[in-house]
Amino acid sequence: MTSQAAKQVPSDLFNGLNTRQLIETVEVLKRDTTLAKFEFRARNEWIDGVENRSVIQGFYGAGAEDESRLVPFTYTSGEPPVLLGANEGANAGEFLLHALAACVTSTAVMHATARGIRIGSISTELRGVVDLQGALALDPAVPAGFQQITVNMAIKADCSDAELDDLLELVHKHSAICDTVCRPVPVVLKRV
Amino acid sequence: MTSQAAKQVPSDLFNGLNTRQLIETVEVLKRDTTLAKFEFRARNEWIDGVENRSVIQGFYGAGAEDESRLVPFTYTSGEPPVLLGANEGANAGEFLLHALAACVTSTAVMHATARGIRIGSISTELRGVVDLQGALALDPAVPAGFQQITVNMAIKADCSDAELDDLLELVHKHSAICDTVCRPVPVVLKRV
Repeated sequence: MTSQAAKQVPSDLFNGLNTRQLIETVEVLKRDTTLAKFEFRARNEWIDGVENRSVIQGFYGAGAEDESRLVPFTYTSGEPPVLLGANEGANAGEFLLHALAACVTSTAVMHATARGIRIGSISTELRGVVDLQGALALDPAVPAGFQQITVNMAIKADCSDAELDDLLELVHKHSAICDTVCRPVPVVLKRV
Repeated sequence: MTSQAAKQVPSDLFNGLNTRQLIETVEVLKRDTTLAKFEFRARNEWIDGVENRSVIQGFYGAGAEDESRLVPFTYTSGEPPVLLGANEGANAGEFLLHALAACVTSTAVMHATARGIRIGSISTELRGVVDLQGALALDPAVPAGFQQITVNMAIKADCSDAELDDLLELVHKHSAICDTVCRPVPVVLKRV
């Protein structure tokens, strides 16, 4: 039973990642960098008031349309009563914090795995400050979006504190969402 | 029965928004701008591999801790098989697109309401292009995040096309998430 169970565990799983696939993916992308181009997508419908819903399914990447998702993901956004909603779902700012949390966590796990660091646990706590005068167009000097976002990460791993600090520096630079927030990224809004 | 139902509909609902509350909120914020400061939050736990989960509940705003959410929202993030996951949930980039879709939609509804424009429908389709060489640290010249995000919005309302174009210009400027993506926003990542 024990040896049977041992056989079932792929020897190349590390931090829950298939390291053989990770290495192969990197090698393939090095040979043909066009395969690294991905296009992610979302469709959203207004329901009423501050409630709306996104459907997420297909994307393009690794040179092909992905067809792995037989059922789409759907996420409802809303607002709390103080912001004219009925808590239909988290609001857009909170979904952005979730996206950032997810990205720094996965980026930490991926780069730790590449460095042979075994992760025990990762917890993050995020806080984003915003002044609603911007979104409500009450003061042109106040930006509409977040003024700053703080991510406190508690991470346990089989390495030194210095190695963890190195890892976090790498994460700050190479997390796709951290970079999207820190760097000015053009958003084209078109009426169709 | 009909007159009973008619009585139950508040006369100040427009585009599903309580316009009386919207006007009062703006007046209150004009008198005391400190009430416009909000802090949104998320907590996230790594589960395994590329799977992690956020819990979203409390926030600070309008001068107080919000206590309207008796049950927290939870959202699971994952990756498709081509990115080493098992479609445990949408990935971080897709959650960011959802946040952006939700925000431009709600911002359009809010400012349309303030202008007396009645919305019939809003649908958005978002596409974000990213080159994974950045996130994988394979090429230092390639940024980790989105290169550009396109939002195509189909909107029906009881106003002219010129008024809709004005509205979309306002939305681009005053959507909190559009601004967060377009403007460089500092992210502080700390180990605790």
